[in-house]
Amino acid sequence: MAAWGERLAGVRGVLLDISGVLYDGGEGGGAPIAGSVEAVARLKRSRLKVRFCTNESQKSRGRLVALLRQLGYDISEGEVTAPAPAACRILRERGLRPHLLVHDGVRSEFAQVDTSNPNCVVIADAGESFSYQNMNKAFQVLMELDNPVLISLGRGRYYKETSALMLDVGAYMKALEYACGIEAEVVGKPSPEFFESALQQMGVEAHQKFQLLRIPMASVICFGPECVHTSLESRECAV
Amino acid sequence: MAAWGERLAGVRGVLLDISGVLYDGGEGGGAPIAGSVEAVARLKRSRLKVRFCTNESQKSRGRLVALLRQLGYDISEGEVTAPAPAACRILRERGLRPHLLVHDGVRSEFAQVDTSNPNCVVIADAGESFSYQNMNKAFQVLMELDNPVLISLGRGRYYKETSALMLDVGAYMKALEYACGIEAEVVGKPSPEFFESALQQMGVEAHQKFQLLRIPMASVICFGPECVHTSLESRECAV
Repeated sequence: MAAWGERLAGVRGVLLDISGVLYDGGEGGGAPIAGSVEAVARLKRSRLKVRFCTNESQKSRGRLVALLRQLGYDISEGEVTAPAPAACRILRERGLRPHLLVHDGVRSEFAQVDTSNPNCVVIADAGESFSYQNMNKAFQVLMELDNPVLISLGRGRYYKETSALMLDVGAYMKALEYACGIEAEVVGKPSPEFFESALQQMGVEAHQKFQLLRIPMASVICFGPECVHTSLESRECAV
Repeated sequence: MAAWGERLAGVRGVLLDISGVLYDGGEGGGAPIAGSVEAVARLKRSRLKVRFCTNESQKSRGRLVALLRQLGYDISEGEVTAPAPAACRILRERGLRPHLLVHDGVRSEFAQVDTSNPNCVVIADAGESFSYQNMNKAFQVLMELDNPVLISLGRGRYYKETSALMLDVGAYMKALEYACGIEAEVVGKPSPEFFESALQQMGVEAHQKFQLLRIPMASVICFGPECVHTSLESRECAV
């Protein structure tokens, strides 16, 4: 703890990624990453504020937290910043009614959103629901709009399951961008607004100079807009 | 014919696109575009050499020609330049063994190609076969290669069926490019090599200054590398 203490001097909070940091998904729900359960427990015992910040968009926060608790993590739904609730806020603020191309597991997050007569498309990591038919439908909705708006929950290229690498939402976002000649709005990492809202929920301001840390066996992501990209690429800890 | 005669002075051949020019696909095979059957017949009666140059990659040339004959066109398989045979030549020349993500209708064009232990991926307009599972498999094959090669039969954004606009291979090509961090090699229009091979098969050299024509009711595409992009964008005739 001595080395940690020195390196964390002046640091007030830590944002932790979930997929690929706390666990790798896969059959039977997935497996915890070695060392991460204890690393989270130690962070929570420290004076630091801790929050979880994920682009997970196949599961509702409720289901994700239930899985993580089953894997041994001390975590509650209120500690998780995820893109679907952030997207819902944007939809409400801008009067947008989405056509949803999302995984059934996350659909409940959009239960309060008006999806009649769509004037935008929201895509997330839809997994098997990324059929040609569903992609074509989303494409046709966009092509019929005078001002097509595509909101993507993340822009990840792929993610790791226990068995293999899997295509993530970013690939399908690019497909629709190219087909429609538009640019998506990304909600989730690495959008600075997304990190800022997580910091706000944690009660920490992003005005401190960031540092990079490596915490053995647990990749920890950052706060502070400057470190967003670095930390995502290197899976280092930036606080 | 007088106006045509003047405008075609010095021109030796014409390359005609097929989908969206001779016919629009759709239920029951599709419908001929008004005026095009007669326009093709007139061109064939003229002193001009005529050849058909298509990015169609859901059907083998045999099936495509059978459909066009049924719609009233005077056309034979030997008059069609299509990307699948061009891709097969490239695969053979470079010792590439493809993992195929293509429509079942065009698979027969690859019957003579070794597809064991793949060292590249070939994608075409696979339609309903663009499932998440199939896209993920193509992605995983590419990610396992030291030098990933992705060959795309065309890079169209979408095409028109009688009922609606449909996502084309280009969108899925972009998805794989982004996910793997690579750039695809495009076989088919608008690759200059593809047009040049069509000219060679027609016995015409691409050294003449091109002209732009508009032939009522039949959009006609070009030869000569200079006019490739213009003609594809505007659906004009360049000879």
